[in-house]
Amino acid sequence: MSELTLHNYFRSSTSIRVRIALALKGLDYDYVAWNLREGAQQTPEYLAINPHGVVPTLVVDGQALTQSIPIIEYLEQTVPDPALLPTSPLDRARVRGLAAMIACDIHPLNNLKVLTYLEVELGVDTEARAHWFRHWVQMTFGPLEAMLANDPRTGQFCHGDKPGLADICLYAQVMNNRRFKIGLEDYPTIARIYDACSTLAAFVQGAPEAQPDAS
Amino acid sequence: MSELTLHNYFRSSTSIRVRIALALKGLDYDYVAWNLREGAQQTPEYLAINPHGVVPTLVVDGQALTQSIPIIEYLEQTVPDPALLPTSPLDRARVRGLAAMIACDIHPLNNLKVLTYLEVELGVDTEARAHWFRHWVQMTFGPLEAMLANDPRTGQFCHGDKPGLADICLYAQVMNNRRFKIGLEDYPTIARIYDACSTLAAFVQGAPEAQPDAS
Repeated sequence: MSELTLHNYFRSSTSIRVRIALALKGLDYDYVAWNLREGAQQTPEYLAINPHGVVPTLVVDGQALTQSIPIIEYLEQTVPDPALLPTSPLDRARVRGLAAMIACDIHPLNNLKVLTYLEVELGVDTEARAHWFRHWVQMTFGPLEAMLANDPRTGQFCHGDKPGLADICLYAQVMNNRRFKIGLEDYPTIARIYDACSTLAAFVQGAPEAQPDAS
Repeated sequence: MSELTLHNYFRSSTSIRVRIALALKGLDYDYVAWNLREGAQQTPEYLAINPHGVVPTLVVDGQALTQSIPIIEYLEQTVPDPALLPTSPLDRARVRGLAAMIACDIHPLNNLKVLTYLEVELGVDTEARAHWFRHWVQMTFGPLEAMLANDPRTGQFCHGDKPGLADICLYAQVMNNRRFKIGLEDYPTIARIYDACSTLAAFVQGAPEAQPDAS
């Protein structure tokens, strides 16, 4: 078994994703926290691990892997059981597509560095930043709700009755939404899947409040 | 062989990615253009194909696949030759990670709908929008350049001497950068790889100017 070290931050949504995947796969790892609020990810110490200066980074036997979904794809290939992706190519494309809706169309627009740029560089006030955050969530959660509700492949989770990559991204995004008090009233299927995830130990273990650096 | 229909737009960077992958795999497809400048992706006709209202969508035997990287992963699994990902899990994680740096940390921030929101909702002027665009390119191209230049696995292309997923994303992003006149003087390795891609027929075929809806 490889030595795994996860460099991350308790509140980071992409860190949540990787922690849940590690927990679902039953993998132990060393937890190293970098405080994004204090800019720790831009220190020479962190840049020596990941020159991109973003979290998470998973170090596997000394080799740094970056970007949450590629990290989870690595775990999926090396520890196939339990599977986080279905077997057939079309079903895999569906699950990866649902995950990418969140990972490419919501999260990148709403993370800390972008909200900071809006505030500091463009002088966007608190209310307009909250509107920005909610806008990008709504632009994707609306269609995501429809695509989940109208597809017979949706089960207790996004795809069937076992949690996978799309559920991981959905759960982390809903957690992230709490900062701007976005409810799930308009998204009953997303709410149902989030609730199902919340009953599982791996998701609870990956949540921000369960981490050693939680504050 | 499956029937393939690509719903896309000539200038869309994510559409460029899928077109190059299809060309590298030697796959024929029907090309359907949706003019994003005119909002065609939000018409009932397009939303019936992809409720998310974004391009590209690849329809495979009547089933709609969304999101460019999941679509390319589908092509990789179903048409393995030529491979767009290396074989070993660690190398696959590297290539997927390089691709995700562009797909998650640059492109989502700089696409048309975001630039439009900045202009219309936040009153950000032309110069500040150009600064925004360049900022997110630079924040990732700097580290990307270092990660490519300092890794012996980089060859003629991002990983070895054959083009793959990371090259596809790099090429499409550099094409996208032209709109804001971002040169590659500070990024010699990225420039070299872009030039190598530009000599290949599949990349030329995927470029905006080669499409039937180019204007």
